[in-house]
Amino acid sequence: MTAAGLLVAMAACGRADEGMWLFSAPPAERLVRDHGVRLTDVWLERLQRSCVRVNSGGSGAFVSADGLVLTNHHVAAQAIQKLGTASRDLLRDGFQARTLAEELACPGLELNVLVSIADVTDRVQAAVTTPMSAEEAAAARRAVMATIEQESLAASGLRSDVITLYQGGAFHLYRFRRYTDVRLVFAPEQQIAFFGGDVDNFEFPRFDLDICLLRAYDEGRPARVPHHLSWASKPAVAGDLVFVAGHPGNTDRRRTVAELLSMRDRSVPFQLQTLNRLETLLTAYSQRGPEERRQARADLCGVQNGRKSREGLLAGLLDPAIVDRLRAAEAAERTALERTAGAGPSPYRRIERAQAELDRILVRHRMVEGALAFNSRLFAHARTILRAADEEALPSPDRLREYRDSNRVSLALDLFSDEPLHDAYEIAKLSDSLTAFAAACGGDDPTVKAVLAGRTPQDRAAELVTGSRLGRRVTADGSPAPADQRRTLSEGGRDAIARSADPMLAVARLVDAEARELRTVAEAAEEVKRQAHGELAAARFAREGAAAAPDATFSLRLSYGTVAGYEDAGRRVEAFTTFAGLFARATDRQELPPFDLPARWRRERPRLEADAGFMATPLNVVSTADIIGGNSGSPVVDRTGALVAVIFDGNLQSLAAGIAYDDRRARAIAVEARGILAALERVYAADALVAELMAGGLPGR
Amino acid sequence: MTAAGLLVAMAACGRADEGMWLFSAPPAERLVRDHGVRLTDVWLERLQRSCVRVNSGGSGAFVSADGLVLTNHHVAAQAIQKLGTASRDLLRDGFQARTLAEELACPGLELNVLVSIADVTDRVQAAVTTPMSAEEAAAARRAVMATIEQESLAASGLRSDVITLYQGGAFHLYRFRRYTDVRLVFAPEQQIAFFGGDVDNFEFPRFDLDICLLRAYDEGRPARVPHHLSWASKPAVAGDLVFVAGHPGNTDRRRTVAELLSMRDRSVPFQLQTLNRLETLLTAYSQRGPEERRQARADLCGVQNGRKSREGLLAGLLDPAIVDRLRAAEAAERTALERTAGAGPSPYRRIERAQAELDRILVRHRMVEGALAFNSRLFAHARTILRAADEEALPSPDRLREYRDSNRVSLALDLFSDEPLHDAYEIAKLSDSLTAFAAACGGDDPTVKAVLAGRTPQDRAAELVTGSRLGRRVTADGSPAPADQRRTLSEGGRDAIARSADPMLAVARLVDAEARELRTVAEAAEEVKRQAHGELAAARFAREGAAAAPDATFSLRLSYGTVAGYEDAGRRVEAFTTFAGLFARATDRQELPPFDLPARWRRERPRLEADAGFMATPLNVVSTADIIGGNSGSPVVDRTGALVAVIFDGNLQSLAAGIAYDDRRARAIAVEARGILAALERVYAADALVAELMAGGLPGR
Repeated sequence: MTAAGLLVAMAACGRADEGMWLFSAPPAERLVRDHGVRLTDVWLERLQRSCVRVNSGGSGAFVSADGLVLTNHHVAAQAIQKLGTASRDLLRDGFQARTLAEELACPGLELNVLVSIADVTDRVQAAVTTPMSAEEAAAARRAVMATIEQESLAASGLRSDVITLYQGGAFHLYRFRRYTDVRLVFAPEQQIAFFGGDVDNFEFPRFDLDICLLRAYDEGRPARVPHHLSWASKPAVAGDLVFVAGHPGNTDRRRTVAELLSMRDRSVPFQLQTLNRLETLLTAYSQRGPEERRQARADLCGVQNGRKSREGLLAGLLDPAIVDRLRAAEAAERTALERTAGAGPSPYRRIERAQAELDRILVRHRMVEGALAFNSRLFAHARTILRAADEEALPSPDRLREYRDSNRVSLALDLFSDEPLHDAYEIAKLSDSLTAFAAACGGDDPTVKAVLAGRTPQDRAAELVTGSRLGRRVTADGSPAPADQRRTLSEGGRDAIARSADPMLAVARLVDAEARELRTVAEAAEEVKRQAHGELAAARFAREGAAAAPDATFSLRLSYGTVAGYEDAGRRVEAFTTFAGLFARATDRQELPPFDLPARWRRERPRLEADAGFMATPLNVVSTADIIGGNSGSPVVDRTGALVAVIFDGNLQSLAAGIAYDDRRARAIAVEARGILAALERVYAADALVAELMAGGLPGR
Repeated sequence: MTAAGLLVAMAACGRADEGMWLFSAPPAERLVRDHGVRLTDVWLERLQRSCVRVNSGGSGAFVSADGLVLTNHHVAAQAIQKLGTASRDLLRDGFQARTLAEELACPGLELNVLVSIADVTDRVQAAVTTPMSAEEAAAARRAVMATIEQESLAASGLRSDVITLYQGGAFHLYRFRRYTDVRLVFAPEQQIAFFGGDVDNFEFPRFDLDICLLRAYDEGRPARVPHHLSWASKPAVAGDLVFVAGHPGNTDRRRTVAELLSMRDRSVPFQLQTLNRLETLLTAYSQRGPEERRQARADLCGVQNGRKSREGLLAGLLDPAIVDRLRAAEAAERTALERTAGAGPSPYRRIERAQAELDRILVRHRMVEGALAFNSRLFAHARTILRAADEEALPSPDRLREYRDSNRVSLALDLFSDEPLHDAYEIAKLSDSLTAFAAACGGDDPTVKAVLAGRTPQDRAAELVTGSRLGRRVTADGSPAPADQRRTLSEGGRDAIARSADPMLAVARLVDAEARELRTVAEAAEEVKRQAHGELAAARFAREGAAAAPDATFSLRLSYGTVAGYEDAGRRVEAFTTFAGLFARATDRQELPPFDLPARWRRERPRLEADAGFMATPLNVVSTADIIGGNSGSPVVDRTGALVAVIFDGNLQSLAAGIAYDDRRARAIAVEARGILAALERVYAADALVAELMAGGLPGR
């Protein structure tokens, strides 16, 4: 093997337990080789079909035959927040349904269970033929994917998504059982779920009860599900092999250097700018008073989380050790590729050019098509109503992805969501985002001027929000809001929409042509990249086979690793924390926010501290499993497939996982299964829940 | 008069009580015409010489013959913060010296009193001759200004600054009596000085005791000052004419449209990006614990204040009503100018080109020369030591402005400041700013790479801070910090500096050539603008005389206006608030931060509420006086020159004052003089202080 070949092999192998593997191609040989474990089909199927994908962007798992789902508090936080009112703050106070009747429907929340996987790569690739322009190719690929999805839906009645893998090197058809009636069963107080707040976020040692229990319903009754996970009878200890099954959202380990540098110098800095601005806005809004704090809390948590994770990613991108390794790996791959290359610009060069095009439109694309300029739910509804009417005039495969028949139910859930929209909050967000739009694109930009219509961003935002009828508005002074017209307009179709004088609809209409144009340009560039990555992936397969897992794409994956502590700046960090550690940290930080304990925990503390068994119970645990955002709520299981923990975070060192796996110091953080049970039993007296978890189902069903 | 001429006249007149006037050219005719008031030289001199400029960027006034100075709490907040320790938090708890001996020296704080004004326009303009390049002209202008300053210092022993007025249309020599021994006498708790925090900042009605009392010392004893302000015996009421004397920092009302658009689309958005990032950083750092909160509090207040004021300015710049008016005024001026114009590009065109050049280097200039990339006091010290040694080899007039002999004392005060530098805080700030540098200029930028030296920003920041000896460092783990080498290196001169292995000094050296180059380019462009503005100003004088005040430049100015409430969104806002209003607002907001009262105020509340006289005492008051940032701490006096209030803020509507004055809704906000006395007497039992204020001096001197 030449030196260059050796480098390629090393890069392809990755490190130790790297990989977010497809359930259709589990790392069987590696597990045998490295851990002496052979997975069975039964084991894999049970795990796969116990897992749920949460449409708010996380993972979870059935933990009872009666549809009970364990996930993270932060995965459900938006839904929990929406259930609150000025007089009932479920995020702050937590929630526990004592009976099925008390379980609270969460409008807009949807769970998907992956039922089957089929490789449709050949059919998708066949649709793209040689003399097509990138735009034509993108359209052809979109169309064939939509056709496959539509046929599958018609044939199976199941949600059917064609998943892009290996940056376009492979395409799989995933079919999902979908649950759209999802109810809240149990949520602890956010202050214990997210103890330590933004300060401890992405840190370890950690002390968070970041869990939430939901229940899937089917025709008004708890769903009977064929597979669920049992609580492990034997807890995991340091050194144990564990598996994580969930939906990692996005990694970029197969990106070329040109794409990584664009992330480093363009897109991630722009994301951070946006997040810093939003964090400042939401923090200031929250300070106005307790009700404002409640309105903004979930958004603020999301923004802080995004900001810290982007900072971690940027730190990785700015780490010469990582970037130089990736540069060297790419140089080696380029050399290998050139031996077999055809005529014309190399895939690397084509990716570079397409990336430059994406960079050129980055800000405007995010502002106008990504709607960063119009940060109000009322605008989101306006755009959905407008585009749905236009798109539904087309055959499903020709539509924008989110308006295809396969997505109809989810779209309606979101559009007709019952959440109250507070005028003051919507105005604050919209005013800020209109200002950012003007600042980014210039005050004399024709679109900026047309959107502002001769007003300041503040005045225009107030005018648009208070003039709109596209939501369940709550006025600032408590006066009655005008009747919600979402259904009327949506059902009235293009004519009703054309006649409507709703100002937010007018803005959505005003920017629609430009937004679509930007989307077309971006999708064409993405298609160029996809084709080039397809070639790179094919060349890599030809050399190595499927030796590496594909990048994450919010599709179901299997990771594995070892329960293990680590060294950090010369200090030993143990793999487990306990309830004793939680109380110690609260005391050490004088119980000042974000280290204050919820009232219940303060009240029960003396009783709990008197119980040495409780105090020694593990609360959080870390492992080397390869995870990333989207894995939140993923079950952690042992070799027998029994639940030992639920993922909720990674440590700071893991935040570069988007571009490179590292098992020296990067760790996945989970809530330990014993800790969950102990909290439910001893703190929340949730006896019925504990009984259901132990029995694996509701009594008498 | 032609229609165009009429427009010019209207634009030149401005509105009603617009103007931050020079004490050497007070608006005598306007005051007679509009208010029937004739100012005397005695009145003007007493006010001028009672005023102090605070080097932290604010204003104040002597209120006793024994050097007692009244200013804002927020003007002195940095100094107060530095006096604190982990066990003594003077920002949080406030401070009161019961005797002269208890007054606390504030290292680094300096007060300047304007003693005389001389017009040196002719001499400055004569130094710039026609065939010079912009760079040569800038150098010549710098040199002649420095020579004038140096000659004046030698002749008078007084700090001497040549002040640029009318964007280069006029130059005045200001001489100052300087006080460098300044001590803290009284500060309330920050929570009452800044009650309502960021939420109520720039809002009205308002309830802030934003005051602080300092004392100037001379040779170790309270300075005897020839002029001070007396407390008004008759309070101001709505409709009264009042005067504000202070140091407005910067306005841009004479900027051309090209410059305004650059502010709108370039510089202000960039400032806001920076402020949002810093606010996020400092907020997150503060959340780590009470000690971290104490370390970052003053910086965080400054950043939040800056962010809100920039947002207000940007709102003004994005207000078509304002920008269109300025465009129309400029178009009229252009027409008038073209009648008398010579050959070559017009001043407007030259300003436009120079502005484009400044825009081109904006980010890099701010990062490298403005040191936004190196946000640590240790870097600031490194640069000062390095540059001072290099610059002192040159004759004073040829040096960079801040290294001239005239600034030597101030520079030393700052460089040798005794403030403790906390490693964790310095690392957090530096890491964040190095990341921002890489994000703004690109990770492969040669300077970025050289500064990072193969490390991540985080690792590099830790290495630079913990390796540096250029300050009184406080290590993160409490271990002894290495000896401070600021004096050794500074006194050792260029040889000692060249031999030093201090890593922060190495970074300062590494970027120095590029930083100086960027400064040269920026100064040349500023010089082009200055010359062009000089021509515009001359043309304007030829048409109108000194009918309008020059833009603010942190030099002493006189404003005036009327005590008056206003209408806001259909609601009447009265001119005064009271202590009763303070307690009502705290209760209404459930005393949750930032609406919590300090312990003393909570404790004394029942007693105070039982006193109807106290409760009805005015706390804050608004007027139409034309102010802007830098006016904080400015005395508000009545026709007799007696103190009726002290400026501390403007309302939201006043935040566009940088580009346009408005007396419909924009208001200057001040702490009312009766409120100050009532708080000192009834809440703080500061009897000796009250006696000194009433007597106008210390007893027995």
